[in-house]
Amino acid sequence: MNPTPKSGRFITLEGGEGAGKSTLARGLADALRAGGREAVVTREPGGAPGADAIRALLVQGDAGRWDAMEEALLFAAARRNHLTHTIRPALARGAWVICDRYYDSTRAYQVAAGGLAPAALDTLNVLIEAPAPDLTFVLDFAPDAGLARSQGRHVGEDRFEKKDAAFHARVRAEFLAIAQREPQRCVVIDASQSAEQVLAQATRAVAERLK
Amino acid sequence: MNPTPKSGRFITLEGGEGAGKSTLARGLADALRAGGREAVVTREPGGAPGADAIRALLVQGDAGRWDAMEEALLFAAARRNHLTHTIRPALARGAWVICDRYYDSTRAYQVAAGGLAPAALDTLNVLIEAPAPDLTFVLDFAPDAGLARSQGRHVGEDRFEKKDAAFHARVRAEFLAIAQREPQRCVVIDASQSAEQVLAQATRAVAERLK
Repeated sequence: MNPTPKSGRFITLEGGEGAGKSTLARGLADALRAGGREAVVTREPGGAPGADAIRALLVQGDAGRWDAMEEALLFAAARRNHLTHTIRPALARGAWVICDRYYDSTRAYQVAAGGLAPAALDTLNVLIEAPAPDLTFVLDFAPDAGLARSQGRHVGEDRFEKKDAAFHARVRAEFLAIAQREPQRCVVIDASQSAEQVLAQATRAVAERLK
Repeated sequence: MNPTPKSGRFITLEGGEGAGKSTLARGLADALRAGGREAVVTREPGGAPGADAIRALLVQGDAGRWDAMEEALLFAAARRNHLTHTIRPALARGAWVICDRYYDSTRAYQVAAGGLAPAALDTLNVLIEAPAPDLTFVLDFAPDAGLARSQGRHVGEDRFEKKDAAFHARVRAEFLAIAQREPQRCVVIDASQSAEQVLAQATRAVAERLK
């Protein structure tokens, strides 16, 4: 009999612009490493050389450069590349992967806010064999406050930030709806708290849910 | 009652590297223009600004840069962009579109030679609502001779040319198999003939099939 293959855990961080996802990613990784685990921090779109090249197409240029279906196809290509070259190898060697954005972002931005049919995203996720995360943190934050925080931080990478307020309101509402539909996978954190409070809440949830 | 919308015709040219597709495209366009029609010559991947940016990812770099599914997703994104910005508007104003490569190339390169499941391509074609061409010419040519012809012609754009001989043999066989499965849409032309003979055979087929 073969032993069960070693497998790490897959944690994703979701939420609008400026909600504090990358700060939480670093904090969680530090906490995991302090506990003796290997932690891999990565992000979407990107996280592997091919996916990074696709990222440039997605985050640069005019807000109307691509329609929602084109975006979803580009995200799917990048996601598959990221899964193959970064996420799956890390999980296979037992590392914990903390990924800043994943397929819930596609559901919020391209489906809920962009008008893509939900079934189209389901189909793409099947085609690329995208695994479900073990745990997802939804950092909930008012879009205005988030955009103010992120303003000027992503020079030349602000294609989605340029979308209008109604778009960002739909993104936020969909993240909350996803968390409500999948409470066993998702934890909503109020991102108007301090970074320390957000991290403390997340590390407690990791300890409780991913023993 | 609305009148039937004006609609042009959609002709695609398929075949391996160096088979003479772009020469035939120019010749067909000249013949159509001489007959008083508007002819639009375009190509895949590319044919619109977004699609051209995706083209650079597909045709540059190492042969193993993307797997067949990643390629198919990138081609689907580029194809949708090309259809939206170039092909559909041209057909809508009554132009004849001559497109150098289209979805049969994805079936030959990514499915038959690359190992992608045929159903995956069918699914992507449905997602992007890809219309079937009115007429497809398959330029059949021995891969060795074609690669010798195209060698050095696409500096920095030779990612697919770098694939091995078995790959190109499967591509050729699949183009012929597609033509056999869909004889009402496809015409095979022996591309070892002179460019004049190829053009004469193609213009006869256009006259007979697209009255």
